Amino acid sequence: MNYKSFITNVPDFPVDGIQFKDITPLLDDEEAFHSAVDDMAEYAKEIHANKIIGPDARGFIFGASVAYATKLGFVPVRKPGKLPRETLEIEYDLEYGTNKLCIHKDDIGKADKVIIIDDLLATGGTVKASIDLVERAGAEVVGLAFLIELTGLNGKENIKGYPYKSLLKY
Amino acid sequence: MNYKSFITNVPDFPVDGIQFKDITPLLDDEEAFHSAVDDMAEYAKEIHANKIIGPDARGFIFGASVAYATKLGFVPVRKPGKLPRETLEIEYDLEYGTNKLCIHKDDIGKADKVIIIDDLLATGGTVKASIDLVERAGAEVVGLAFLIELTGLNGKENIKGYPYKSLLKY
Repeated sequence: MNYKSFITNVPDFPVDGIQFKDITPLLDDEEAFHSAVDDMAEYAKEIHANKIIGPDARGFIFGASVAYATKLGFVPVRKPGKLPRETLEIEYDLEYGTNKLCIHKDDIGKADKVIIIDDLLATGGTVKASIDLVERAGAEVVGLAFLIELTGLNGKENIKGYPYKSLLKY
Repeated sequence: MNYKSFITNVPDFPVDGIQFKDITPLLDDEEAFHSAVDDMAEYAKEIHANKIIGPDARGFIFGASVAYATKLGFVPVRKPGKLPRETLEIEYDLEYGTNKLCIHKDDIGKADKVIIIDDLLATGGTVKASIDLVERAGAEVVGLAFLIELTGLNGKENIKGYPYKSLLKY
């Protein structure tokens, strides 16, 4: 499917100079959303993932849907103060600003082969932080999937050595 | 399915006196998560919804998954500063604190029969704000679905007249 026709470019959002890729028209289209989740689910099966991880908040949209489609469990990576039990925590740089992410210490472990799913691979900061959390929890990252890859920001460098799939590239 | 066995009670989170219902063990269990999404999807079909709405952030988990399961489009209700195009906005009281929510002005319209999906019905503030946004956008709310209903907080009063289903009650 030509996913690009469902992505709206919004200039200067959230700050001047950023060309924001708005995915809401794709989510809003039942065929396009369904097909994107199916493509990610197929990839998750190919790499034999047995657990799906999605970072707060847009990673929940594709992560949880792929978990449903593959009939696997879903583990959220969240901002501080959101997960109520004991967490592992990491701070990292964003495309604009900094961020902190957490995972429940006992949500994943040695038996887990994890795929991390997010809507966007930009600089790769969020997914690299998620990889670090997963590995500190003792699980293995077998792959990554993104709806969009912004190739100009070279996020690839941040996730060297990890197989990944992006459904569309700019 | 006995969903309650997958919910962990965490006392005094996020503030003293709150008994937080942690849904992450349910998400992490492939059978329980899949079954909960199926139950909500069945209800969405029963009430002839043609669009799924989920509020930021945990509403994305069930909302998007039910959208996939029913092959309907998904529209996010988000915190301010997250949606890049023109939005409708509403401020409301939370169980603890206040919150503001937004929806893209053109994501839904007169033809849409909406189901709003969230993990939790507490005081009903978030879902009532989402109902108001949907109706201001010109669409019809045909029902609501929640994983958990905290009956003691009487959120039912806030959503009077709207059909809803909750998968488990405390």
